Amino acid sequence: MSFVILNGGFLLTDFVSNTLQVQLTQHHIAGKETGPVAYALDDTIAAIATPVGEGGIGIVRISGPEALAILRRLFRPARPRPFESHRLMYGHIVDPHTGDVVDEVMAVYMRAPHTYTRQDVVEIHGHGGMAPLRAVLSLVLSAGARLAEPGEMTLRAFLNGRIDLAQAEAVLDVVRARTEAGLQAALRQLGGHLSDDIRHARQMLLDVLAHLTALIDFPEDDVPPQDIAPDLERVAAHLERLIATADRGMLLREGVRVAIVGRPNVGKSSLLNRLLRHDRAIVTDIPGTTRDVLEETLNVRGIPVVVVDTAGIRQTQDVVEAIGVERSRAAIAQADLVLLVLDASQPLTDEDHAIAAEVEGRPAIVVLNKTDLPRRLFPDNVPFLPAAPRVELSAQQGEGLDRLEETIFEQVTGGHVMPLHGALVTNPRHKAALQRALDHVRAAQSTYAAGLPADFITIDLHSAVNALGEITGETATEDLLDTIFSRFCIGK
Amino acid sequence: MSFVILNGGFLLTDFVSNTLQVQLTQHHIAGKETGPVAYALDDTIAAIATPVGEGGIGIVRISGPEALAILRRLFRPARPRPFESHRLMYGHIVDPHTGDVVDEVMAVYMRAPHTYTRQDVVEIHGHGGMAPLRAVLSLVLSAGARLAEPGEMTLRAFLNGRIDLAQAEAVLDVVRARTEAGLQAALRQLGGHLSDDIRHARQMLLDVLAHLTALIDFPEDDVPPQDIAPDLERVAAHLERLIATADRGMLLREGVRVAIVGRPNVGKSSLLNRLLRHDRAIVTDIPGTTRDVLEETLNVRGIPVVVVDTAGIRQTQDVVEAIGVERSRAAIAQADLVLLVLDASQPLTDEDHAIAAEVEGRPAIVVLNKTDLPRRLFPDNVPFLPAAPRVELSAQQGEGLDRLEETIFEQVTGGHVMPLHGALVTNPRHKAALQRALDHVRAAQSTYAAGLPADFITIDLHSAVNALGEITGETATEDLLDTIFSRFCIGK
Repeated sequence: MSFVILNGGFLLTDFVSNTLQVQLTQHHIAGKETGPVAYALDDTIAAIATPVGEGGIGIVRISGPEALAILRRLFRPARPRPFESHRLMYGHIVDPHTGDVVDEVMAVYMRAPHTYTRQDVVEIHGHGGMAPLRAVLSLVLSAGARLAEPGEMTLRAFLNGRIDLAQAEAVLDVVRARTEAGLQAALRQLGGHLSDDIRHARQMLLDVLAHLTALIDFPEDDVPPQDIAPDLERVAAHLERLIATADRGMLLREGVRVAIVGRPNVGKSSLLNRLLRHDRAIVTDIPGTTRDVLEETLNVRGIPVVVVDTAGIRQTQDVVEAIGVERSRAAIAQADLVLLVLDASQPLTDEDHAIAAEVEGRPAIVVLNKTDLPRRLFPDNVPFLPAAPRVELSAQQGEGLDRLEETIFEQVTGGHVMPLHGALVTNPRHKAALQRALDHVRAAQSTYAAGLPADFITIDLHSAVNALGEITGETATEDLLDTIFSRFCIGK
Repeated sequence: MSFVILNGGFLLTDFVSNTLQVQLTQHHIAGKETGPVAYALDDTIAAIATPVGEGGIGIVRISGPEALAILRRLFRPARPRPFESHRLMYGHIVDPHTGDVVDEVMAVYMRAPHTYTRQDVVEIHGHGGMAPLRAVLSLVLSAGARLAEPGEMTLRAFLNGRIDLAQAEAVLDVVRARTEAGLQAALRQLGGHLSDDIRHARQMLLDVLAHLTALIDFPEDDVPPQDIAPDLERVAAHLERLIATADRGMLLREGVRVAIVGRPNVGKSSLLNRLLRHDRAIVTDIPGTTRDVLEETLNVRGIPVVVVDTAGIRQTQDVVEAIGVERSRAAIAQADLVLLVLDASQPLTDEDHAIAAEVEGRPAIVVLNKTDLPRRLFPDNVPFLPAAPRVELSAQQGEGLDRLEETIFEQVTGGHVMPLHGALVTNPRHKAALQRALDHVRAAQSTYAAGLPADFITIDLHSAVNALGEITGETATEDLLDTIFSRFCIGK
């Protein structure tokens, strides 16, 4: 059973997801004759699959029908023997034209369909440096492979039906996860928990649609009309439950931005350094995460907390920290939560008040630092930001950090415990699609309650089914796929 | 046959290199009882073996007797079957305490001795991000492995006799190679070309030593005294040949630093950009090579040429390039070769003269840029740096770049063609050891020519043998090994 979607942007109109790949491929081949054929599956692609940099091992991955032939052309095994699927062989990659050894490697051929892409895959494991990896890749390309686009390996896994779109997106989330809890959420999505839940809701809607379509198409038949209200309500409740996980799920995936602000010398730097030391499971040493922007990532109970730098946080040796207010303004503007740091050993200054005025109306925590010194300031003396919780601590002594982390956690989660099992929506795209599906189901409920004809209901239900299909990829536009897979790294 | 070396720093005194591992191990176990036992081979080590960052695949490598047992504890194969050596299996890494899936992986067990370390090795290939790799590594460590020291995998390959010390060092050179030619040189060393040549020289010396020792130990016997002069001369010539390759070999490995200097607006930036574009085989996008210091690496006929930044090269938008002389001074001081850029469409200025005065006495090339404009300056008009070759070009039009590269190449190599086959000394450590060996052989020749007793000669020959053994590792001090392997990345 199938039906046609009016919106021309959709490439797929069938319930059976297996047909997606063919339609996508044909569409692209037909529609993009001038440029390189996107989504073609019949050529052989290759890329460096390990991160860029220096390490023990680097991998060049090849996927497609020519993978083994290319390996045969370039690989000289130390002990010649037939290639066996999934068996690593030791040898050398040799330039067939010059006879030069290009790297000492382990090579493995993996026969379709039990591979990442469901195509024939070859991996060449060489030394983890740029020169050997490039040398190997360049031979592979000249032996007939095409350089893979970013995400193209995973796109093939999706197009070949090994994983659905939500799982493909989870691959990227696993790679990019910044905390253990974020990793767990991504792995659950990769394992198909979310997809199963989505498909379950989608199937319920399809069953209702089948019934309504039968009523419409064969009015002369004796199809006993059946009350679809309970079914629709079940779906709506199911979707609501999923949407309710989204805010917390997205926290795990995206994290929150926290600004530490305060006038000079209240101890912002010491506080940040303490937090960094306090929590050893920090993801600060990944190149690129902290280099360009001055920020550090903490792991607060599994939530990646990106601390946005303000002037005081990374005061350089030769620059005197000047006006706190002005420098804090930008940090406050981009933060989800502000830590306003005060010096508890000093009375409040005008600058404290000025900075607090900037924070007004934003989610905030008032931190009274330097409790190890003689006290001049207590929580009750702080007249501003009445709704913000107060936390007293000594960054110097390392006291009160647990309380601060707990308060941060409560502020960003609303006190909810992070769900550790079951499906979890972590992706804004998924949340938006779920919300659209829910809106259409609610609309269908009203239409049905108003006693309008069945075809009025089916329009909304079709839209709901499609919205859900966008998550798992049964219905997905070309633009959507391009957007999703272009965010991948090359080689994935 | 064996003999004892007087220098207590040497750990090994035997011709048979296989005993090195045992002696080293025992030495360390005995000598370092308080700290962790360095060079122990009986524990199981693990580390992330791929570069740090985000990529498709990341590998945790385990080496040691417990490797397979650890894998069994953590790996849940998708289709349970017995582990077969070198066969990749698909499945999941599962935390045995919580039952949580920690990553979706391919795992492979490689049975000793056909492995990188000659021990049992396990590789777990997961997603190439820090969170999944750390999660897997942390389970591996809690299952009984110890975190490997930098270079410890390769150290084990060395201690277990799979590779010698020069080959172990070549591993690092392969990873760090910046050009195709540098990679070729490193691969030749990894393949054992240099080691073979060294061992050949060492064996010749040992043969002479054996003869002399027989003369000394059994004077009563009728050992016919034999003329060792030709043998010594053959060894000396062999060592000289090797040393002669060193300057060029080290160029391939280390590259040269070139400073582009000149007064403002002579076209330094355009020249650098042209050179960068002209030569596409550049290694500028490896993190760490260019980020912290403002320099770019060109590949000039296989030689990595690091262009040191001067004020004009990376003039920022908001900083006006001021006094060329002062800014050039530092760049000139650290450069192996200076490109002094002049504007051929202008007469010489005082500043040109001042900068040239700074360059005086340094290897340099005078570049006359902007030959596309009406000429005001010709090579014959340039009164300074008479020994420096003149190159005329137009960076704007991209003309004359080949000549410039050729001239750079001639200046840094003395016009010698880079050897592309045979042994090549690329490492200053090796060159120094070869030079010491040669000095001792020369001294032995003098002693022999002077007719002094055999034991006078053997002292020098022993020292020469040991110097050569330091290269391949037959004689190596603990400090030397520590120095060499600590330069490795973790996981290698």
